[in-house]
Amino acid sequence: MPKFEPDARLVADSYPVTELPLCQLRLMDDARFPWLVLIPRRLNVSEVFELDASAQQQLWREATAVGRAMLGALGGDKLNIASLGNVVAQLHVHVIVRRREDAAWPAPVWGHGQAEAYDLDGLADMRARILAEVEGLDLASGQ
Amino acid sequence: MPKFEPDARLVADSYPVTELPLCQLRLMDDARFPWLVLIPRRLNVSEVFELDASAQQQLWREATAVGRAMLGALGGDKLNIASLGNVVAQLHVHVIVRRREDAAWPAPVWGHGQAEAYDLDGLADMRARILAEVEGLDLASGQ
Repeated sequence: MPKFEPDARLVADSYPVTELPLCQLRLMDDARFPWLVLIPRRLNVSEVFELDASAQQQLWREATAVGRAMLGALGGDKLNIASLGNVVAQLHVHVIVRRREDAAWPAPVWGHGQAEAYDLDGLADMRARILAEVEGLDLASGQ
Repeated sequence: MPKFEPDARLVADSYPVTELPLCQLRLMDDARFPWLVLIPRRLNVSEVFELDASAQQQLWREATAVGRAMLGALGGDKLNIASLGNVVAQLHVHVIVRRREDAAWPAPVWGHGQAEAYDLDGLADMRARILAEVEGLDLASGQ
């Protein structure tokens, strides 16, 4: 039976953080923004509407709850939540904590300048903060 | 009691189309893209997580269903669904039918070039197509 694998371009641009009930949670390798990506562990799904109704709810529940927790933990001015997929067809949802002083504000982050890779300490710190926040969430759904 | 009003900048950039159970559905005045905006009729809400859980579900249900219907009706290659709000704080969700040959592909549409206003025939045609699609949707929720 084919197994879920994140798209190779998402793997190249991001680090795995943890597994949520529905989604693999990854951190984009761009220290300019706290930028997470949630990928439902489903095969051959490109659009949200291709998930069944309960998985659609779970996807948005996970994205919204993780975003809320990260905004609270890190501080910030606005959440950006988006399913685009014009480049990588595998369904994924971006969750980004935006700040008025960040590198792209008020523009969206996509295609804005060059990513700044995390150093190892910065990556470990951000990963630990995300894990601490996600652990406190109630995301159970039976998915 | 204060009444819901769409933000003045959204009013300036878009046309009202219809009222969904939760959201006012508007069409952005940019004929380059079939670009809808859904605004929950709630006061003083900026983030999705500020809605109660059932309204959150309803918001995504409306955005996903309207997007699916428009993608089917108009043809296209990808839906973009996004809650950004870096410029207009009032909570709103963008639903855009993207095509590989459109003016911004594969980049996001925000901030890309200059909007091309609809002429009256084009506007009437697009509005009629949206209404025809939305009428067929089951979006009831008790919201």
